[in-house]
Amino acid sequence: MTLYSEINEQPERIQSLLAFQRKEVERIALEIRKRDIQYVFLAARGTSDNAGRYANYLLGAHNRLPLALATPSLFTYYKRPPKLKNALVIGISQSGKSPDIVSVLEEGNRQGCATLVITNEPGSPLTQRADYVIDIRAGMEKAVAATKTYTAELMSIAMLSVALHGNKKLWQDLEKTGRWMKEALKQDNFIAQAAQRYRYMDQAIVLGRGFNYATAFEWALKLKELAYINAEPYSSADFAHGPIAMIEPGFPVLAIAPKGKVSGSMVEMLKRLHMDISAELVVISNDKRALALAQVPLTIPSDMPEWLSPLGCILPAQLFAYYLTLAKGYDSEKPRSIRKVTETR
Amino acid sequence: MTLYSEINEQPERIQSLLAFQRKEVERIALEIRKRDIQYVFLAARGTSDNAGRYANYLLGAHNRLPLALATPSLFTYYKRPPKLKNALVIGISQSGKSPDIVSVLEEGNRQGCATLVITNEPGSPLTQRADYVIDIRAGMEKAVAATKTYTAELMSIAMLSVALHGNKKLWQDLEKTGRWMKEALKQDNFIAQAAQRYRYMDQAIVLGRGFNYATAFEWALKLKELAYINAEPYSSADFAHGPIAMIEPGFPVLAIAPKGKVSGSMVEMLKRLHMDISAELVVISNDKRALALAQVPLTIPSDMPEWLSPLGCILPAQLFAYYLTLAKGYDSEKPRSIRKVTETR
Repeated sequence: MTLYSEINEQPERIQSLLAFQRKEVERIALEIRKRDIQYVFLAARGTSDNAGRYANYLLGAHNRLPLALATPSLFTYYKRPPKLKNALVIGISQSGKSPDIVSVLEEGNRQGCATLVITNEPGSPLTQRADYVIDIRAGMEKAVAATKTYTAELMSIAMLSVALHGNKKLWQDLEKTGRWMKEALKQDNFIAQAAQRYRYMDQAIVLGRGFNYATAFEWALKLKELAYINAEPYSSADFAHGPIAMIEPGFPVLAIAPKGKVSGSMVEMLKRLHMDISAELVVISNDKRALALAQVPLTIPSDMPEWLSPLGCILPAQLFAYYLTLAKGYDSEKPRSIRKVTETR
Repeated sequence: MTLYSEINEQPERIQSLLAFQRKEVERIALEIRKRDIQYVFLAARGTSDNAGRYANYLLGAHNRLPLALATPSLFTYYKRPPKLKNALVIGISQSGKSPDIVSVLEEGNRQGCATLVITNEPGSPLTQRADYVIDIRAGMEKAVAATKTYTAELMSIAMLSVALHGNKKLWQDLEKTGRWMKEALKQDNFIAQAAQRYRYMDQAIVLGRGFNYATAFEWALKLKELAYINAEPYSSADFAHGPIAMIEPGFPVLAIAPKGKVSGSMVEMLKRLHMDISAELVVISNDKRALALAQVPLTIPSDMPEWLSPLGCILPAQLFAYYLTLAKGYDSEKPRSIRKVTETR
């Protein structure tokens, strides 16, 4: 299966991306640091938008850069783009083709902003509008559901953040990431079994916070695209402001809760769901308190730092979505109603 | 019922807000225009966050201001707030109490940014950190599910946008809004009947785009809080990038698609859902093409301009959620698991 082999390719792709592109990303970071950048304006759709959510937290926490997610319709339908003075305009797109993302980069260019594109297609229309291009080098992605381009986008963002930051120790963490990812993929057999339990699940909630807010969105998207499950992602804080009302005993809640600054608040929410509401819990974590509350605990290596944990946590999530798709009798290679490249305006 | 009477109070509340606060909002806009504002940094949760989504489009389209939605955990758990130079920091909160929103405003203050709070509680902790306060004057909201504070927040944002813009004609549109809202509420009996059809609906998709992206989120939130329906909001563009795969014949799609710049793209998506996938459609619109595709068409006045249509479209949506809650035998006044004021960090 193409999807399955692309999932398993990820550790090597990440290692080779780091080896081949570190110098180029450092060069780009040096250029960007010469400009007077006050915030990031980021345009992306689908899986790439989820990578953008990681950038929102990482560039905020490590680089103190505020980040605005673009609303492309202001550029396309309304033709009223905002004034982007002192913004670094970033476009993320696997194919580099979606017209709405191209419009945002064009406008950034027209207004004289610094522009950066992160893509798997270095010759695509999107890159023709950019000052800087990071080629994520994921190799051709044949499965309709994106997996290896997602982690390669995350890694590119992590490399950019570290290069802007300049901390040598963080490069060492990046060097270890491929190994951590290999470790996380070893749960394959366990996940193939565990997914059976959810054969008749047709809806779910996916919770994540901070760096793993992105993972919640990406896990939910894989479950929707592949297994046709109405899976809705939330931060645990937004979830407490209303949506928690719909959780009944047995309702499936999938959570990403590795050790880190937000794990206390995540564990508190998981306890409430487990004890007060008797929700069903699938938890991806390296925190024993979180794993102990789950019907199905999925793990990442215990020494993976929180800021890189999205690159580990998404792997059991992808495998879970893949095996659940097979358990439900669907075709993991040809999801209905969607194509590889979606061109929206 | 408190919720029902609060829904019906909205046209008068909006008219009195406009009458009482126009001068104050114009004064605030004058002050803000003296500062060198390059973008807006906005913090809110739940219903107020949905009002923030309206601000994202309106301040973008009418005032050319880019808007970044804050990620409060960077301020609270990570303690790594971004550098907010030249940002206008806005907090929106009905109660003015949520500690995470207070943290964002405090930090904006500390960094010397212009700070503005939009709230129903002018004496609350949040307002003590703000240079400017817009009191939305919705009167005490007793129902747990927010309705009149949402439309009062939308109206406050619309007034601020018009005041920053200075266009006299737009004030005339604001004057008509209460009347348009009264008109939209006249469908009460029809909606009470139509909601019966969805007695056994347990999940749904809610689509909106541009100004009504906010309406999609707020409609979905009411359905979750009150009727315990797993309703997920999308822009029609994001929806095409993957989630559309999960729609089967008969799957309920609720859509907000009034006349305007994005209605062509919305109608195209509704046609695809109706003809290719045989989805069930509930549509709020004043566009005949969109209404003709719906099993249940709900209307707003035909002359309501697109930029104010969220103040009209949310009314049939609120009534639909209310009557569906009764049809399902739930208590519209006391949703399970949530309280009026949610304090998250």
